[in-house]
Amino acid sequence: MKHTSFKGMDCSAAQALECVGEWWSILILRDAFLGLSRFDEFQNSLGIATNSLTRRLKHLTENGLLERRIYIERPKRYEYILTEKGRDFFPVLVTLTKWGNQHLAPNGAYVQLADRLTGKLLEPILTDKQSLLAITYENVTVQPGQGATEGVLARLASSKLKMNSRG
Amino acid sequence: MKHTSFKGMDCSAAQALECVGEWWSILILRDAFLGLSRFDEFQNSLGIATNSLTRRLKHLTENGLLERRIYIERPKRYEYILTEKGRDFFPVLVTLTKWGNQHLAPNGAYVQLADRLTGKLLEPILTDKQSLLAITYENVTVQPGQGATEGVLARLASSKLKMNSRG
Repeated sequence: MKHTSFKGMDCSAAQALECVGEWWSILILRDAFLGLSRFDEFQNSLGIATNSLTRRLKHLTENGLLERRIYIERPKRYEYILTEKGRDFFPVLVTLTKWGNQHLAPNGAYVQLADRLTGKLLEPILTDKQSLLAITYENVTVQPGQGATEGVLARLASSKLKMNSRG
Repeated sequence: MKHTSFKGMDCSAAQALECVGEWWSILILRDAFLGLSRFDEFQNSLGIATNSLTRRLKHLTENGLLERRIYIERPKRYEYILTEKGRDFFPVLVTLTKWGNQHLAPNGAYVQLADRLTGKLLEPILTDKQSLLAITYENVTVQPGQGATEGVLARLASSKLKMNSRG
C-alpha cells in the first residue's frame, strides 16, 4: 500500500507528498479541518479499518501535522488536533476541492466556502500576496529558489521553461 | 500499490484524489507544467520504471488531465499535453509546493514562482475572486453546496462546524 518514497527528491511538492504520507491522510486532514479530532469520529467519517487509521494518525503526528492531546485522564483518551503546520495545509485542500468541484461534481459542489462572519460565498483563487494579481499557469514562470540543488537547476534547464510557451 | 478507491465518496477532494490516481501522478503533472511532454523526458526526470510510467500516463489520459498527441508519424511517437482540466490543476501544485517550501525546505525554496513578464517573485495566497480578501482557515466556514448529498449534510452536521471555533 505504501508508495515509493520521495525522500531525497529535491522538490517541495514531492517532499510535501512524502510528508503527508498517503491519499487517505488528506481526507483525515479534511475531517480535522471540519473539526473532527477523536479516533472514533475519524473512523465513523472515513469508514476505515482501525489499524489503517492508527497508522495514518501516527504518521501525521510524527510528521508534525497533528498533535496528540489527552482529553480524558482515566482511562487515557487522546484527540488529534491540527498543528500550525497542519493548518498551513488548508490551501492545498481548498484548491483540491475547487478542482474537484470544477471537473468532478456534475450535480454541483458538495461543499463550498463561505465567509465566517457574513456567510457570503467565497470563490478561492490564487493571487500574489503583494500585488493581488491573479496567479495562473499562463502568467507565471519558475525560477530556482535559494535552496535550489543541481538537480533542480537541471530540471529547470531541461524543461526549457516551456511553461511560458504553452499559454 | 493502488490505494483504496474513493469512488462514490461524496467529497470533491476525494474525487480529485481518485481522478489524479497516485502520488506519482502529481509529479508527472509537475513535469508537464514545466513543459515536459515525451515519455523519455518524464522517465529521465522521474527515474520511474517504464511500466509504471506507462500506467500512470494512461490513467492521467483516460481521466482527461493529459491528451496524447502524435508528434512523429513514422514510427508513431506520442507526446502528452496538459488539457484544460489538467491545467486547472495548477493551483493544487502551487499550494502543495508552497507548503513544502514553508515546512520542508530547510535550505530555502527549491523553486519559486515569478511573473512571466517582469520576473518579479510571486508569493501565492488564496483570496476570494470578487473581494480579493484573503481566504484562511480562520476566516472561513463550510456550507453545503448545490450537489450536497445526505452524506455531506451528515458530515457537516457531525462536524458541528467546529472549524469556526478553533481559530
